[in-house]
Amino acid sequence: MRRLVFRAQHAGKRVGVVPTMGALHAGHLSLVDAARDDCDLVVTTIFVNPTQFGSGEDFESYPRDLAADADLLAPHGCDYLFAPTSSEVYPDGYATTLDVGPVAHPFEGKHRPEHFAGVATVVLKLLHMVPADVACFGKKDYQQTLVVQRMVTDLNVPTALRICPTIREADGLAMSSRNAYLTSTERHQAAGLHASLQLAKKMTGAGERDAGVLTQAVKAHLERLGGIQVDYLAFVRAGTIDEVAMLDGPTVALLAAHVGKARLIDNLEIEG
Amino acid sequence: MRRLVFRAQHAGKRVGVVPTMGALHAGHLSLVDAARDDCDLVVTTIFVNPTQFGSGEDFESYPRDLAADADLLAPHGCDYLFAPTSSEVYPDGYATTLDVGPVAHPFEGKHRPEHFAGVATVVLKLLHMVPADVACFGKKDYQQTLVVQRMVTDLNVPTALRICPTIREADGLAMSSRNAYLTSTERHQAAGLHASLQLAKKMTGAGERDAGVLTQAVKAHLERLGGIQVDYLAFVRAGTIDEVAMLDGPTVALLAAHVGKARLIDNLEIEG
Repeated sequence: MRRLVFRAQHAGKRVGVVPTMGALHAGHLSLVDAARDDCDLVVTTIFVNPTQFGSGEDFESYPRDLAADADLLAPHGCDYLFAPTSSEVYPDGYATTLDVGPVAHPFEGKHRPEHFAGVATVVLKLLHMVPADVACFGKKDYQQTLVVQRMVTDLNVPTALRICPTIREADGLAMSSRNAYLTSTERHQAAGLHASLQLAKKMTGAGERDAGVLTQAVKAHLERLGGIQVDYLAFVRAGTIDEVAMLDGPTVALLAAHVGKARLIDNLEIEG
Repeated sequence: MRRLVFRAQHAGKRVGVVPTMGALHAGHLSLVDAARDDCDLVVTTIFVNPTQFGSGEDFESYPRDLAADADLLAPHGCDYLFAPTSSEVYPDGYATTLDVGPVAHPFEGKHRPEHFAGVATVVLKLLHMVPADVACFGKKDYQQTLVVQRMVTDLNVPTALRICPTIREADGLAMSSRNAYLTSTERHQAAGLHASLQLAKKMTGAGERDAGVLTQAVKAHLERLGGIQVDYLAFVRAGTIDEVAMLDGPTVALLAAHVGKARLIDNLEIEG
């Protein structure tokens, strides 16, 4: 894989990579499109990374269908699908871990203690296996984009990051491989996640700046809808993971919740 | 720097890098020679990395003379000297650390708890700033070579490592920038480090296999010489950091000791 990338780069080609865990949906495919627009050669990686799942999480049941994924990628002009095995990625004796510091600690980091060390490490490994010029990530995983950016900046990784917009279903639910876990009732309820963040945005547009008031309103909205257990809801300064009590500029509302068996996350940019 | 390296590689050239902390001596220059033999373009990096020094260690007093180092490098065919500043290497907001696991924990890792996290991190950063085909390190820092190899293997870093022999003074003292700390009396005493390891090798050649007996002999030898305080002496299976009680194959004797203000390390391969 690496030889292919280097050969393309030596021939003056720009290489893009889209790291994924497979179970591809329109969100992933929009990242492939973004890489395709920007690059001469596009690689999608598929690897369900065990180290970013906690015990009791859905590593075993995470949806896997490489053939279906390959069929989805082809019409989007993806040149290579790179799908290493676990033992190729983590051979015997593997012992290295990465800590990217405070940006990884709150929110997802608190609810999933090993998660971001696993993410940062596997992304770094993948960027060494596929040393692309550009790597595309989705904004749906807001904190993940900060973690990966911190890692790339701190370690001088010679790959540029491109963060792409969240792709949503018609009713606003953010595309996620984990939406497959939802029953049809839950699927309907899950649309409330985005709707509740839109409510916060609307209230902010009408002048509300108090994160506490917004939080109460969002949670009340979700309670009325039913079926949604909030893990956390927070308002952070855009581009950071720093929580704000009073919105005073570009802000991102972060939401994580359980809907049935699925744990879903979403976020929305709010002009505070 | 990275553009220079990529440009050379795109032109089909092989690039070698020699990461150093400066205060260059014949040991470093032998690494430059090794890179020169193997590569079309040779880069030496000089960076006294603060994160690999513990508090109370010699970061402030570590010898620095960039002009003298440049003069030494030129006749060895080094093409580029890359000497970033601390704020370039660790800009504001820097937060990432690397842990390479068990290989970093005993011996130097025990006596210098932050040391190998600092080493592994800065070497990874330097290999991203100077993404060479080959990086040369000296065998004098035996455990460091294992740490760097573990990091490079575990993270799929696309740079090959070349580990080069220890270069010694006429009396056997391993070349080290820290030898500059020795008074002339201490300099004379320090030769005992290598001599004592040679004694262990000789005893092994004569049939001794018990690491405990060898340890006693080496320590007795050093005590007779005087002026040397041993931090640790250990016999490990060659290519590993696993201590052996009875030598039963290729072994490396590891020694760390204080001589005056200098803390010196050395090692010797022994056919156990």
